[in-house]
Amino acid sequence: MTSSHVNPLRDPRDKRLPRIAGPSGIVIFGVTGDLSRKKLMPAIYDLANRGLLPPGFALVGFARRDWANEDFAQVVHDSVRQYARTPFSEEVWRHLAEGFRFVSGTFNDDDAFDALAATLADLDRVRGTGGNHAFYFSIPPGAFPTVLQQLRRSGMADPHGDEWRRVVIEKPFGHDLESAQDLNQLVNEVFPAESVFRIDHYLGKETVQNLLALRFANQLYEPIWNSNYVDHVQITMAEDIGVGGRAGYYDGIGAARDVIQNHLIQLLALTAMEEPVSFSPKELRTEKIKVLSAVRLPPDLSQASARGQYATGWQGGTKVPGYLEEDGISPTSTTETYAAIKLLVDTRRWAGVPFYLRTGKRLGKRVTEIAIIFKRAPHLPFSQNDTETLGSNALVIRVQPDEGVTIRFGSKVPGPVMEVRDVNMDFSYGQSFTEASPEAYERLILDVLLGEPSLFPQDEEVELSWKILDPLEKHWERSNVQPDAYVSGTWGPASADDMMTRDGRTWRRP
Amino acid sequence: MTSSHVNPLRDPRDKRLPRIAGPSGIVIFGVTGDLSRKKLMPAIYDLANRGLLPPGFALVGFARRDWANEDFAQVVHDSVRQYARTPFSEEVWRHLAEGFRFVSGTFNDDDAFDALAATLADLDRVRGTGGNHAFYFSIPPGAFPTVLQQLRRSGMADPHGDEWRRVVIEKPFGHDLESAQDLNQLVNEVFPAESVFRIDHYLGKETVQNLLALRFANQLYEPIWNSNYVDHVQITMAEDIGVGGRAGYYDGIGAARDVIQNHLIQLLALTAMEEPVSFSPKELRTEKIKVLSAVRLPPDLSQASARGQYATGWQGGTKVPGYLEEDGISPTSTTETYAAIKLLVDTRRWAGVPFYLRTGKRLGKRVTEIAIIFKRAPHLPFSQNDTETLGSNALVIRVQPDEGVTIRFGSKVPGPVMEVRDVNMDFSYGQSFTEASPEAYERLILDVLLGEPSLFPQDEEVELSWKILDPLEKHWERSNVQPDAYVSGTWGPASADDMMTRDGRTWRRP
Repeated sequence: MTSSHVNPLRDPRDKRLPRIAGPSGIVIFGVTGDLSRKKLMPAIYDLANRGLLPPGFALVGFARRDWANEDFAQVVHDSVRQYARTPFSEEVWRHLAEGFRFVSGTFNDDDAFDALAATLADLDRVRGTGGNHAFYFSIPPGAFPTVLQQLRRSGMADPHGDEWRRVVIEKPFGHDLESAQDLNQLVNEVFPAESVFRIDHYLGKETVQNLLALRFANQLYEPIWNSNYVDHVQITMAEDIGVGGRAGYYDGIGAARDVIQNHLIQLLALTAMEEPVSFSPKELRTEKIKVLSAVRLPPDLSQASARGQYATGWQGGTKVPGYLEEDGISPTSTTETYAAIKLLVDTRRWAGVPFYLRTGKRLGKRVTEIAIIFKRAPHLPFSQNDTETLGSNALVIRVQPDEGVTIRFGSKVPGPVMEVRDVNMDFSYGQSFTEASPEAYERLILDVLLGEPSLFPQDEEVELSWKILDPLEKHWERSNVQPDAYVSGTWGPASADDMMTRDGRTWRRP
Repeated sequence: MTSSHVNPLRDPRDKRLPRIAGPSGIVIFGVTGDLSRKKLMPAIYDLANRGLLPPGFALVGFARRDWANEDFAQVVHDSVRQYARTPFSEEVWRHLAEGFRFVSGTFNDDDAFDALAATLADLDRVRGTGGNHAFYFSIPPGAFPTVLQQLRRSGMADPHGDEWRRVVIEKPFGHDLESAQDLNQLVNEVFPAESVFRIDHYLGKETVQNLLALRFANQLYEPIWNSNYVDHVQITMAEDIGVGGRAGYYDGIGAARDVIQNHLIQLLALTAMEEPVSFSPKELRTEKIKVLSAVRLPPDLSQASARGQYATGWQGGTKVPGYLEEDGISPTSTTETYAAIKLLVDTRRWAGVPFYLRTGKRLGKRVTEIAIIFKRAPHLPFSQNDTETLGSNALVIRVQPDEGVTIRFGSKVPGPVMEVRDVNMDFSYGQSFTEASPEAYERLILDVLLGEPSLFPQDEEVELSWKILDPLEKHWERSNVQPDAYVSGTWGPASADDMMTRDGRTWRRP
């Protein structure tokens, strides 16, 4: 498929030049894993189907399996058929599949990597990938040093002339500040900082990017986006599922490292940062780093945090096991599946406004949201009786599902007295736009191929977020107590509610 | 029906004491007219049905017709069956109808007014109306002096002990400042100011009262409700119908006197006023008078106003005649059916923020709204390309139909670039509350019986609004030109658009 084809999936009203990747190919390490099958392969197909990949694009799988190219193509085909978001086109598929290759080997196998290098060189010749290669690490962090070393040894990390070589890293970016620094150093020995793309798929979500539009394209919100008017902020990522197949990875890591360190602290940065001079990657990064440098944990960590572990309970009418009964989890594990922390932001804009971050598995509902809770009006010229059921105003950015924005405010209840009650005003992404939201991985893979780093946390951001989280992890380690049990399907442990009650606040029930 | 009955129409969650009128009766002058039949009679029935009238309530009709009480009851019955909003209850009707009386006579007929006085005295005895009588003037202003004189002569205007006597006046409250002052003086010779209730049925509408809740019960809106953030305000009352049966009244009066002087200037007052200390009638009036005193017309009236007259055109697929072809309208009439004016408010809050008011008949749509149009964000850190279709933020209070609030703001368009486009966030009264909105006349009649004057413009407000409008009416009179013709079904004359264009703005198309 060439870019000159009329593409039915592209909005004809879009008069700008389409962002189409130039000649390039992508190598996925760990291509047999879940992420590759459910997200990466379908995203690559969808990009091709939207006409955003170059005509000679190449996809190379690397794994231990003893697959021929055709076996690999079949796996991709099955994955695309099951998970792609755009309709299946035989023509697009045929063009794309001509660029599929599979290289079999282990990460210690020099020959396999030499074969990979030869495959890429061959693709440069026959598909015109132009020496532009992205290496996607969908592998455990323990394997990073070996693969990085192999890429260096075989010369695959070194571009010639105006070629590019990029590496894409999935979380975890370390498990504390020290390990993150080690990892960054290791990667930077092989790839320069501008060639390293760390995936935080939350940053690829439309609503997260809309947060910037909402704040900075409008006159309405920014004037009240500060400590004069905001009482506090709640950032929530709740899952209704348990640890599932991720037991091996998750145990010993826990909710704070798995979600707060990356997703929630990134959402905090976008919510709290000052307006950048422009949305250039550099300016955006500068503002995120600035605000992350100003974030700190309160002094008394036992008062400002909560951790929990789900116990048996009910999920959608089915009885589900507790964390300690899950397959692959040690029955004495002290890993938390729920974590809540209070953060302070020492800037003129946010001084005195706590940011409460929480995440957990097996909670009441799958939802991610940023809720700005405003102070009460300084004076209510109503009788107390009439504002009994009036809460605080809130602006809620719904990240998923049902992406959109909700404003909660007080409105007069119809009737002969001036009673005021909370109502919601809604904006729904899906209802307001005919354009489909691209899947986060589509957006991010295209950005990698385009060399557009805005949505990828840089090493400094990663290290700053570990710097924020480290004292809390150490505090939990020192106290060495079992996380507080909470019944599956509820909203976390009582200690998390107590933490808010101490501050005279309550968690939202999204 | 006694108030101890369980009332299925009252919200059981309402824990407050219901506002039920005490012993009283109402006399309607002009009871055979449209207003009485379509609004007043049904409202009285609905109030009874909601249990908000006293058990022995009395309704007395006064008109020239030679009706017996039974004939009158039949007329009320037909009106209730056709226009009441609550279901018909035989029991409620029977109780209510026992208090119906009809007195036949002209306004010059002393005997008829003596008979009316005797009827009221009799009702005090047999129905227990306690000498508390409201006199509703649903009659042409020309008849006011005579009826007022008759009420004084017959003693009906004078309460004894703790009785009350109130007079309810429908617009027009004069046709300029002088006539309004004369009228006020005339009324006040017979009834003290606190016993005079001027009906502006717009103030009885839920959304108008909600404007106060919206502004003063919330933290979100008030910080941006001023000249720092607001570019201008547009207050629109558009009708799709023509002059219809009101030709006799309307010709020579016109759109500005008929709608702007009362409804739109009252909406402006509620939008622009400062927060009252409380919602007591006195405090509310104080703030409205304060802001109305600060309103002025710009110096060059020919640049700051527009007037139009509808020409023939299409309305809902039917060809409709122009104003000059309507029955009862002089073919050389210079009465305007469309008026637009720009007003300035000389306060710290609003200096430099124009308020544009417009009203017209035979416009594109029936709609009343208050639109707060905000300034553009002072800086847009986007490429110009990406904000091409971004307008100004707006907060729109939809008064009718589809009562509610809309916020227009910029949101990211789904897709790989940071394009920003306007979207709407909606709150709809009907969808958010199960409580039915009482009809404006229900609310206002109950307030008259309760002696609750908050929603009734007082003489000073009426005089202030004439003071605002008088120079414009004089300017139009002096220039003595035919209003600009506009095609029925469009949004008014080109001159109204030009008036906005000169200011670099445009009218909303609601």
